[in-house]
This record gives sequence, structure tokens and C-alpha cells, in this order.
Amino acid sequence: MTTGKMIYLDYHATAPLLDETKAVITAALDQVGNPSSIHTAGRAGKSLIDQARAQVLALVAGCAGRLVFTSGGTEANNLALRGGAAANGVTRLIVGGTEHDAVNAVAKASDLPVTVLPCDDQGVVDLTALKAALQDADKALVSVMAVNNEVGTIQPMDQVASLCQQHDALLHVDAIQALGKVELTPLAFAADFLSIAAHKIGGPMGVGALHVRNGIDLSAIQYGGGQEQGARGGSENLLGIVGFGAAAGQVATLLAHQDRLRDLQMTLETAINSAGGRVIGADAPRVATCSAIEMPNVEAATQLMNFDLAGICVSSGAACSSGKVGTSGVLQAMGLDDARAKCVIRVSTGAATTEEDINRFIDEWQAIYGRLGQPSSAA
Amino acid sequence: MTTGKMIYLDYHATAPLLDETKAVITAALDQVGNPSSIHTAGRAGKSLIDQARAQVLALVAGCAGRLVFTSGGTEANNLALRGGAAANGVTRLIVGGTEHDAVNAVAKASDLPVTVLPCDDQGVVDLTALKAALQDADKALVSVMAVNNEVGTIQPMDQVASLCQQHDALLHVDAIQALGKVELTPLAFAADFLSIAAHKIGGPMGVGALHVRNGIDLSAIQYGGGQEQGARGGSENLLGIVGFGAAAGQVATLLAHQDRLRDLQMTLETAINSAGGRVIGADAPRVATCSAIEMPNVEAATQLMNFDLAGICVSSGAACSSGKVGTSGVLQAMGLDDARAKCVIRVSTGAATTEEDINRFIDEWQAIYGRLGQPSSAA
Repeated sequence: MTTGKMIYLDYHATAPLLDETKAVITAALDQVGNPSSIHTAGRAGKSLIDQARAQVLALVAGCAGRLVFTSGGTEANNLALRGGAAANGVTRLIVGGTEHDAVNAVAKASDLPVTVLPCDDQGVVDLTALKAALQDADKALVSVMAVNNEVGTIQPMDQVASLCQQHDALLHVDAIQALGKVELTPLAFAADFLSIAAHKIGGPMGVGALHVRNGIDLSAIQYGGGQEQGARGGSENLLGIVGFGAAAGQVATLLAHQDRLRDLQMTLETAINSAGGRVIGADAPRVATCSAIEMPNVEAATQLMNFDLAGICVSSGAACSSGKVGTSGVLQAMGLDDARAKCVIRVSTGAATTEEDINRFIDEWQAIYGRLGQPSSAA
Repeated sequence: MTTGKMIYLDYHATAPLLDETKAVITAALDQVGNPSSIHTAGRAGKSLIDQARAQVLALVAGCAGRLVFTSGGTEANNLALRGGAAANGVTRLIVGGTEHDAVNAVAKASDLPVTVLPCDDQGVVDLTALKAALQDADKALVSVMAVNNEVGTIQPMDQVASLCQQHDALLHVDAIQALGKVELTPLAFAADFLSIAAHKIGGPMGVGALHVRNGIDLSAIQYGGGQEQGARGGSENLLGIVGFGAAAGQVATLLAHQDRLRDLQMTLETAINSAGGRVIGADAPRVATCSAIEMPNVEAATQLMNFDLAGICVSSGAACSSGKVGTSGVLQAMGLDDARAKCVIRVSTGAATTEEDINRFIDEWQAIYGRLGQPSSAA
């Protein structure tokens, strides 16, 4: 059943490195010197970082803010929620019900009271609940992800931002999955803090950034030599940052792929629906790159193993949870019962995904379902 | 005065990437998949990380502990002092007087009471003061760097560790500058927590690790998807980690250079002393790779500019402080008065440093001192 070519449908976990990313990293391997050193070698390193910063900032061109490079999206989220709260007298955290663990776990570890917002069965945040929570809070920091990593839901960020403004609350937008799939500038305009990561767009893993609106304070959460204008101590990840810059420079190309990926998504989901599967959250606005697919009565772990044997890489839920037992918190928040949630996998696509890849996946899905599913007993 | 070849004498800030590091990073550019994904691509990434972990752990072979990869030495220090204190009921931090800002700033931001230990005029930690501080503390976490980054002082870690054991205190050793210059295993045996970083040994910037002795608890300080067995959330910096592994594999070679570098250090310091300069902290045990050199009456910034114009890269104090105004905290702790401390630069060497490099530096030092120094007015 396996062919030679691996089919990679796990872009939401991480995208393969772009050729442009590889090229700048390769060139930077010969860069000598700590960017904080003021000699010629150090200044050359700093210049590379400055250039990458400009490339990433260009993604939110026209939006007056500053960029803090971090070790990834997770650190950016940690920095926003902890450093943002500490610096701005925040008294309550309000977080979406379908956030990534990089937000949930920070909220859970916080000394501040936390409100977790409900969502509807499509994963869309409950704005009425947000409004009520904002009314109850003295100074709130709201954290809602623009695009859900597991289901692809696009949240109504305009309305979230508007409510935050009305109640003088700060807004953090986890835009890690949004980057490259929707326009970033409107999100950055709506947000006080915006998290992004390189590896979702063909940059390297282990580098991200927090965009901070001008006039909004931020406390460091990692203390050291005062890099990133005091916002983040630690010698800069030069290779990662230049790779992030190069990938950021290709985001327009990635955005141009979205219509094509939307067609592939429709092909995929039409076929899956016909074959007895169900697409979770399909009735909400979604990005083109993600389908959460339930194969009735076949647990995700079993599916993944079978797809893997067939040379197809997919995930269940967030990549970082793939190795774990337990049901996806996102699907739980959407009200999917455990038995069904356990049978959901995530198919996520990117620039290099072809129609052939999708057709291969559909064929394999049908074959696995034919072997292992029991359509007659499906609810 | 400038020749074509740049002379790099700033290894304590960052070492150039080793060819071995470049090779594994280049190979890993084609690696697809998030190491947390359980499919073939993800497992291949995880396998690379496992291999790098084994390579780094081999540096402390025989020492029963676990390794947490971090975004650098700074994060490792933050993790030890904050996550180590939180998990082990620590009631007081005791830190050396010549620590890096990645320790000092963490201590300063801590809610715990902090004792800063004095040192002698050679930068050696005051063990009597440590003993007194330990006697006063209920449960202390002591943080002392094994090798000073600015002056090169080797601290008496055996005695520090022994005192910590006697008083049931935890010991964190910042071994970031020690790595590759002294044997790491004895330090790891002495320490409950040990910080190291890749870029001091020819690995990439932006990756480090904390070694934690078995049986010692650690709380995460960055929350996310549960990577690093829950000790550090965030998608792994794959390129950085494989580069760290490759550089770790070359540490024995680096250690073998130390005798040669010791000879170069003696050549350098003999010449500087003859020419009217002074070597700071020369009477304490020191590593071979570092000389803190005072050029009487010529401020460090002026020296750096002149050396840079001559094609020689050196720093004043820690690289991350090079761009800043103010006197080195290390030199202050050693009792050097401000006027003298302002005239000190750091020359630091590594595997690729040659006798010719050192002779060029000596010639240039004499030339700059001849032009700008006023030996007659030196104290």
C-alpha cells in the first residue's frame, strides 16, 4: 500500500522549510560573532537580525508596534500573558475555550483569576460570555486565537477586539496558525499583543515573535543581558531569526495558495462526507488548510498508524499532544462527546500540497474505514 | 593598519560555528515534521533530538541526571533559579558576586530574599561568606558560575558544593563558560542544576540546556504543549539542538586545545605586562581562553573602536553589555575602581586562534597604547 513518496498533511504541526529559508540559514552559518558585540563581526550579525526584524514587521506593515523575537510561539504566548499582565496592572485573564496549551497552561499557572470562555459547537467563541466577563473584570487581558490549530475556526476577532476596547481590556491574539493563511495586518491592528511563529510558514522551529502595540507596556519574563531592548534576555537565535525573516518574506506567496487549498479542502471534505466521515466545525468560517475529520468508530491512534504505514503523515489534535492519551480540549469545548472526539484526526495542508496528495489521502481513508470502521453501528 | 584577515578574539561572546555543526544543520534542513508528531516524519525529527541529547549528556557521562533543552544559557539559568526554587521549597537565593546578568537579573526579580556573596580582588567567591549565608538560610539555592565569563576565574566548586551539601542547600552551577574549557563531569556531579550553552563551543546561538540531577525536582517556567517531559513547553528548536549535539561531540578536541591556548595566554600577558598593561584577576586559577586587560587611561570603548579598525574583534565585559554604558559588575565586585575598570577589555580565544593572531593583537595593543595612552600619568 505504501508508495515511495511520503505525503505530508501535517502543516499545522510544522511546515517543511522553504528553499528561501534554507538558503539564508546556509549563508548565515559562516556568520561569526555575537550580535550584541559592537565590533565588525557582531555588527554584521546584528544587521542580519535587523533585516529579519524588518521582514517580519512588514507582515503587519502600517501597524505601529515593536517586535520581540522569542524562542517560538509558546514563548510569545507566555510573554504576552505573563509579561503583558504584569506590566499593565491586569487583574483578570479571559481566555478562549479552544486555545492552545501554550495559553491554557499559562492561564492555569497564573496567580490571576481566569475566565475560560465557552464556544459554540463549531468552535466559535461566545461573545455574550466575553462581554459578561469583561463587565465583571476590573482590568482584563483577553487571549483568543485568531485561527484554531486543530479545527481551523476563524474567530470573529473584529468583534472580540471591539468588546475589549469598549471595556478597556487588553487583547492578546494568538495568530500562530493564522500567519500565512489570513491577512495578519488587521489582526495586529486589533491586538495589543500578537503571537506568531516561524515554523508554521516554512521557517525553522524554535523561533517566534511577539508584536506589541506601541504604547502598551511589556515586562520581560526571561531575564538576562538585556537583549531585545530589555524585553527578552538571552543571546539571539541568529540562524532561527534569519530563517524566520526569509519565510516571512514568502508569506504573500503562501497567501496566494489559499484559494487553491480551499478547492482541495472542498474536494477532500466532499469525498469524506460521501464515504461516511464527518468534518468537525465545518459550519463556521474556517481556513482552507485544515480539516478535522471523524472516522466513525476508528480511534485516531489506529488511524494514524494506518495512515503512517501508507506513507501519509497526519496528526490527531495538536502535534504536541499527539503522543498523549486523552481527548482534545478543543473538541471537548465544542461539545463533541468523548467517543466521537477520540475518532478525529487533523489533515492540514500547505503550499506544496497537491491534488494528488489529497486523492491519495481520500483513497487511503476509504480503505482504512472499509477495513476497520463499522459504518452500520455509527450513530 | 588593517589587513584582509579579521582576527576574532571574542570567543567568550560566541565561538564561530564548527564545520561539524554546519554539516548537521545543513543535513537537518531537509528534515520535515514536528518531533512531537508520532508519524514517520515526526519520529525522524525526534530521533535527531534524541541523538543530540545523548551527545550532550555524554559530556557528563556517568552523572545521573536529565537534560532539558532550552533556548540558551540564559533560559537555562532562569529555569534553574526559578523552576528549581519553586519545585524544591527554596526560601533564599545565594548568588556569587561575579555572576552573569542571566543570574543576577533573575535573582533581582525573584520574590525570594537574595544574598549576594562577596569575592576577593581576584574574583574568587568568598567561602566564609557562603558558609555564613547557608547557616542563616532555611532552604537555600546557591548559584555560582564555574568559570567567569569576563575574567576567566575558575571558582572552587568542590568547596562550594561541599558547603551546600553540609547545609542541605541546592547548588546551581552556571557552566556556560566552563564548557569546553574545563572538564564538565565533576561540575555536574557537584551540581543539582548545571547550565550550558551551545554557542560557546561552536554550536549555534539560541540553544542551551539545563542538566538536572536525578531526584531533584524542577517546575516548568515556560508553559505549553508539554515538551521536554513537561519541563519546557514549546516546539523544539530542531536545527539548534542538532547543532548543539554536533558541537558537544567535539568538546574533547576543544579541551585538547587548552594547553596550546594556555601558552598563547602566557605569551599575550607577558607582552602586555611588559608594555605597561595589567591583567585583571591573574593571580586566581583561570581558564586559558581569557585575559581581562587594562590599558591604563584608555577607555574600553576607544580601544574597541581602534582594534576594530585594525580588524581585531574583542569585547569589553560580557558581549550583551558591550553596547551599554556603565562599569562591569564583575570588575566592581573585584574592587577595581571605576576609572580603571573602564579601561579593561576582554580578549578571549578558542580552537582556531593562532600565535599569529595573538602577536597581531600584541602589536596593535602597543600601537594603540602608544597613540592614546599616557603611561606617565598611570597610577
